[in-house]
Amino acid sequence: MHNKQRRSIPSSVLTKYKKEFQSVSLSPQTIQRCAPKVTTVTNQTNKLMHSIKEAIEKSGLKDGMTISFHHHLREGDFVFNQVMAVIREMGIKELTLAPSSLTNTMNEMVIECIKDGTVTHITSSGMRGSLGEFISHGGMDNPVILRSHGNRPRAIESGELKIDVAFLGVPTSDDYGNANATVGKSVFGSLGYAKVDAQYADKVILLTDHLVPYPNTPISIPQTQVDYVVEVEAIGDPNKIGAGATRFTKNPKELKIAEKVKDVIVHSPYFKDGFSFQTGTGGAALAVTRYLASEMEEKQIKASFALGGITKPTVDLLEKGLVEKVLDVQDFDKGAAEGMARLENQQEIDASFYADPSNKGAVVNQLDVAILSALEIDTNFNVNVMTGSDGVLRGAIGGHQDAATAKLTIISAPLVRGRIPTVVNDVTTLITPGKSIDVLVTEVGVAINPQRKDLIAIFERIPQIPVFTIEELQQKAEKIVGIPEPLQFTDRIVAYVEYRDGSILDVVRQVKEFEEERS
Amino acid sequence: MHNKQRRSIPSSVLTKYKKEFQSVSLSPQTIQRCAPKVTTVTNQTNKLMHSIKEAIEKSGLKDGMTISFHHHLREGDFVFNQVMAVIREMGIKELTLAPSSLTNTMNEMVIECIKDGTVTHITSSGMRGSLGEFISHGGMDNPVILRSHGNRPRAIESGELKIDVAFLGVPTSDDYGNANATVGKSVFGSLGYAKVDAQYADKVILLTDHLVPYPNTPISIPQTQVDYVVEVEAIGDPNKIGAGATRFTKNPKELKIAEKVKDVIVHSPYFKDGFSFQTGTGGAALAVTRYLASEMEEKQIKASFALGGITKPTVDLLEKGLVEKVLDVQDFDKGAAEGMARLENQQEIDASFYADPSNKGAVVNQLDVAILSALEIDTNFNVNVMTGSDGVLRGAIGGHQDAATAKLTIISAPLVRGRIPTVVNDVTTLITPGKSIDVLVTEVGVAINPQRKDLIAIFERIPQIPVFTIEELQQKAEKIVGIPEPLQFTDRIVAYVEYRDGSILDVVRQVKEFEEERS
Repeated sequence: MHNKQRRSIPSSVLTKYKKEFQSVSLSPQTIQRCAPKVTTVTNQTNKLMHSIKEAIEKSGLKDGMTISFHHHLREGDFVFNQVMAVIREMGIKELTLAPSSLTNTMNEMVIECIKDGTVTHITSSGMRGSLGEFISHGGMDNPVILRSHGNRPRAIESGELKIDVAFLGVPTSDDYGNANATVGKSVFGSLGYAKVDAQYADKVILLTDHLVPYPNTPISIPQTQVDYVVEVEAIGDPNKIGAGATRFTKNPKELKIAEKVKDVIVHSPYFKDGFSFQTGTGGAALAVTRYLASEMEEKQIKASFALGGITKPTVDLLEKGLVEKVLDVQDFDKGAAEGMARLENQQEIDASFYADPSNKGAVVNQLDVAILSALEIDTNFNVNVMTGSDGVLRGAIGGHQDAATAKLTIISAPLVRGRIPTVVNDVTTLITPGKSIDVLVTEVGVAINPQRKDLIAIFERIPQIPVFTIEELQQKAEKIVGIPEPLQFTDRIVAYVEYRDGSILDVVRQVKEFEEERS
Repeated sequence: MHNKQRRSIPSSVLTKYKKEFQSVSLSPQTIQRCAPKVTTVTNQTNKLMHSIKEAIEKSGLKDGMTISFHHHLREGDFVFNQVMAVIREMGIKELTLAPSSLTNTMNEMVIECIKDGTVTHITSSGMRGSLGEFISHGGMDNPVILRSHGNRPRAIESGELKIDVAFLGVPTSDDYGNANATVGKSVFGSLGYAKVDAQYADKVILLTDHLVPYPNTPISIPQTQVDYVVEVEAIGDPNKIGAGATRFTKNPKELKIAEKVKDVIVHSPYFKDGFSFQTGTGGAALAVTRYLASEMEEKQIKASFALGGITKPTVDLLEKGLVEKVLDVQDFDKGAAEGMARLENQQEIDASFYADPSNKGAVVNQLDVAILSALEIDTNFNVNVMTGSDGVLRGAIGGHQDAATAKLTIISAPLVRGRIPTVVNDVTTLITPGKSIDVLVTEVGVAINPQRKDLIAIFERIPQIPVFTIEELQQKAEKIVGIPEPLQFTDRIVAYVEYRDGSILDVVRQVKEFEEERS
């Protein structure tokens, strides 16, 4: 069976999902929300537990339940491993692990939990490193469900993802559960992903390394949603929150791409007073932000808001008065996290507000310009940010599908990476359909989606922006690195890729072992 | 039939309610929350409507539905009358009117709506003036349901009160529905009551007189919960928000009571560093706040938080450093409203956070000292804040039942008011059970609830606080004004009084007409 995007999805999977991917334009629907089961607290009972174990026991966590974590602490997270160690020790099995995402620091623990049956199901934004290898080589019986940051709150609100117990690391809390992430030893700014879990999980356990007197303010997660609080030595290493993400690139190719991205934005009809943008992270994205800032300063253009996972350079724009508001669902470095505590116009938003297609209007609906990355982009502008050139899981959907709803969605990517082409005939895994991509920017030139005739007409007249067809770019890439051997997969599905509306968009299959190929 | 409080409630009412009032101590329960039906918005559709009528039409409001309003603008509210005028014109009938409370400025419109069948059911915190007279004299077929500010969110979350369309006046909003009450022409500080409606109503319509560019921050009500925005000429007269509530008394009797209340607090075991309090409004309450401030300053005692409907004098304590945090579910004057915009430690909380007994812990659970008023208090310490000496509805539960859960609940009231005794043998209407009242303070002395042997032992040894039994105070009152004629009621019930857990606590009956008495 092939779905509308010509992805090969077995009919059994289409049946299971009921919703097959239809379109990147979603029609209004009326949806009955679900809600948690709340165990009421009607007195001053101290919610403070002596240990993680005591909190887990009181929560009633048992075999077969669903647990969640946030990934705000990224590679500096100490919460996941601490909690899972206790759960394993307690012998609780067959859990569904439903974090907002999984970072490398969690990988070994997840693998051990799968091996001993503690975890039998996973849903995540993505996975990388050893865990990606493990899953792609068939390490788990049940396929992983991959959801974007906007699709996750949608699934939670609709009841498709019912969280029994949420374990949420917070940089500060009082003993009744009022928490924020702007004060403490391990500040990370916005609790955007965690806020959704706190609101919808039946039981909510906070872990903090900075307990303060009641009542703690400002309140990002309120006492009304929290069952237990556990004080731990450390929730994380704040120096590792932004590891890798916020380094300013010196790579000439990346700088060249960044400059071209800036050129595309500046010459587009969206670059005017009050425009809005999401630049994302990574060296090239930070360079775009810097180049854009100069243009804004020069042309006296002020943005209404900047969105997404926020970094220090975006906060600098706010402080320079080049951006009116910064909306943070997540902060990628200390500078951004500290800005949230200090700057009135840096506003914490939750993941539903950010990108959920099933509320009364997410902020991505208002977005003018989004700059996104790609591992692969094909001649239909379909993008893969999930599987590598070896077919192995090594990425995350993040907000990719969600932010691609912007009026001008730009994919910023090198034509090739080493011996591996970025522009291909068919993406290995479809994450964001080409219908929602407008422009590809590479170091050699740009390609505009043929459906955007308006943009083609504009950029034809701008000599400093060399425009190619996407097929031309694909051929240029092929010329450099040749035609790669087709990847070999087994029939076994290791992951489902959902579109942001919860429909099934693609599947990831187990990679063929070298031994198998030979036999 | 009499319930446990010996109130005469017909068995048909007890059957309808299922839950009969049991105790002021509520046990933990696990409750399945309900949730709204959400009509999704997946694009940049302008939610801005040209008129209230257009918004109502789009909302799908029809006969038999439930509509809500907040009462943050109090006697300065222009929203209710504007909206109801349009609803009447549109001919929509048999609505349930479920505001957080009803103020006098709404009375004539409500009466007209009842008369022409626009409104057939009402649930409110209370009612006063002409509307109270109208209802108490049998003006509506169906009994009004009276709920405290904590009970209302409980009823909403449990589905007992399902709001179809909420009409919420906001001092500022953008055209996508991000709203707050700290910026604009008619600022009123906290949107505490409105936030619950925004979260749970199927359709949410904002009315604002100060539309600002997207995205409006800080965000009290988020775009994710808002269907439509209507710009109106004025949502209210901010000068009338605090009318009456914030006048500082010069009445010597009130000042005497206030001083005694202060004495009781100061000599209680709760007056120590980190204590918390709710003083409420009215001249005497403001005097208590002022007297308390001097004692706190002198004895170097700092409160952890002040709670409730906040007034300027409480904000002054925050600015003087005598209170760490102020938690505002509502603001009663301009000073308090403006403080919220300016002061980091003045935190907006919603009505659920304030007092809801069915979440994971409301702030009233943490309250040390509450000072409350009474129209009547009887020899069992039961309090009536709802019906007057003529048996007519002229009050509101407000947070009375909720804040009475404090460790030290003080009723501050004169022994008599004119010819009318405050301390009586039996309250006309039971609003807050005596079990949750600790001390009555009058101008002649105090009475301590016999169940508080600890407090009796303490105050026996403090000569400047004259302690009487409540029976002695009742007799003193009787000596001054004599024994009033017993009130005459018909059998017809005009209002149900719920306790904060939704159980039926008492009923209010239709008053007998003078003509009837003669015949």
